[in-house]
Amino acid sequence: MSKKPLILVSNDDGITARGIAHLVKVMKEIGEVLVVAPNGPQSGMGHAITVGDTLRLNESSVFEGVKAYECSGTPADCVKMARHFVLKDARQPDIVVSGINHGSNTSISVLYSGTMSAAIEGAIEGTPAIGFSLCDYSHKADFSHAEEIVKRITLQVLEKGLPRGVALNVNIPPKRNEPVKGIRICRQANAKWVEEFVQRFDPNGRSYFWMTGNFVNFDKGEDNDEWAIANNYVSVVPCQFDLTAYSAIPTLNEDWSILN
Amino acid sequence: MSKKPLILVSNDDGITARGIAHLVKVMKEIGEVLVVAPNGPQSGMGHAITVGDTLRLNESSVFEGVKAYECSGTPADCVKMARHFVLKDARQPDIVVSGINHGSNTSISVLYSGTMSAAIEGAIEGTPAIGFSLCDYSHKADFSHAEEIVKRITLQVLEKGLPRGVALNVNIPPKRNEPVKGIRICRQANAKWVEEFVQRFDPNGRSYFWMTGNFVNFDKGEDNDEWAIANNYVSVVPCQFDLTAYSAIPTLNEDWSILN
Repeated sequence: MSKKPLILVSNDDGITARGIAHLVKVMKEIGEVLVVAPNGPQSGMGHAITVGDTLRLNESSVFEGVKAYECSGTPADCVKMARHFVLKDARQPDIVVSGINHGSNTSISVLYSGTMSAAIEGAIEGTPAIGFSLCDYSHKADFSHAEEIVKRITLQVLEKGLPRGVALNVNIPPKRNEPVKGIRICRQANAKWVEEFVQRFDPNGRSYFWMTGNFVNFDKGEDNDEWAIANNYVSVVPCQFDLTAYSAIPTLNEDWSILN
Repeated sequence: MSKKPLILVSNDDGITARGIAHLVKVMKEIGEVLVVAPNGPQSGMGHAITVGDTLRLNESSVFEGVKAYECSGTPADCVKMARHFVLKDARQPDIVVSGINHGSNTSISVLYSGTMSAAIEGAIEGTPAIGFSLCDYSHKADFSHAEEIVKRITLQVLEKGLPRGVALNVNIPPKRNEPVKGIRICRQANAKWVEEFVQRFDPNGRSYFWMTGNFVNFDKGEDNDEWAIANNYVSVVPCQFDLTAYSAIPTLNEDWSILN
């Protein structure tokens, strides 16, 4: 019988968040689990890492029967510490899973997502990696239907592997009256946030701001993650960390007069 | 005579860093300048934004004759506040420039770079945007040779524009005995950081860590940013914020048995 896969679990909502409890529960059914996750919320941290400051890492007993550490750093820090400290000279993970994020990471939100930065960090190391998000921001969001979806996708990736340099951004529709219609491979929708800054004044009369915003979807296609979620499909976007806009290279080479 | 371009300047080393002073100096020669930059170092912040916490924004007199604000947030926050608060209902920038970063942002470092997140944020808004970095980490790094290069590239972008959805990641070689050989359009090199965590103990006997690391370059090509810098060329990588790995979509559609 083949060895059980070693699964590294992280997230950006913090080690005590509801989503990671669901993720760990599913992963325990699949393999051996190691958790290294932030010791508090790290939402919106994008691909931040801790430079110029120190990091703390402490064992945690949050998950019964699972080796777990809480880290003072970002999700990307967590994956780096897992690989290069906790598992230094040890067997490396067969897969990195991150989430389940409490809220959507579709479209442009992938850039700001700490959940996805943990997965991308896995992909940089050459490990198949998946970020899972539930598209429901409500306090009472129901994660129960996500478990079966997370399990099917994780098993599929363990069986088939992933192209090198690719991590999956998986978004799961909110629980609706009917079950999800299925799973779709998608592209990142063309959409963005339009921010508003709500100005307030502290007790000393100095102003401060809350950033709020509206999500604006410019995309009319049916092959993108926004369409999938709106139509009750799970969206799976393969994401790369090579940011080169290859199609722009010949354009710039032709247009620019300052090259040599 | 045409109106002078409105130039939004930000960075990630903070509003008092040396690199942004050089950048503002050059931009004043080109157009009307507005600075919104972090009130302290934000290196390694990747594309982080401030969610779940408040932001401060205060006018700054750091730059003579230039309207400037210091912001408590990340580089991405700065660009968002510039556009949707400082310039709300006003003329929007013709270009966003970020830097000059004190250190390299070649290859995979683009993901962790606050400098580039400010530029990418500009590109998301549809504005031509450039992140400039000087590949010299030394305390005494000489930025003087960068000014001419920054000016030429900025003028070129103002003249020609940039493809939509693209921001430029410009890295400038350290000052050497001979002038730079030229400017090259490059792709992001295939390289990564291998971290080491140096463990220390605080006065209470509790452990903490410093993240250090070595940069490992796997790339043998001569068309990438690492090669350019090593060979004394300025590297210009067009970067995109659509992370979709398009080539992986048909692969996954063929391989996976759980789709419908």
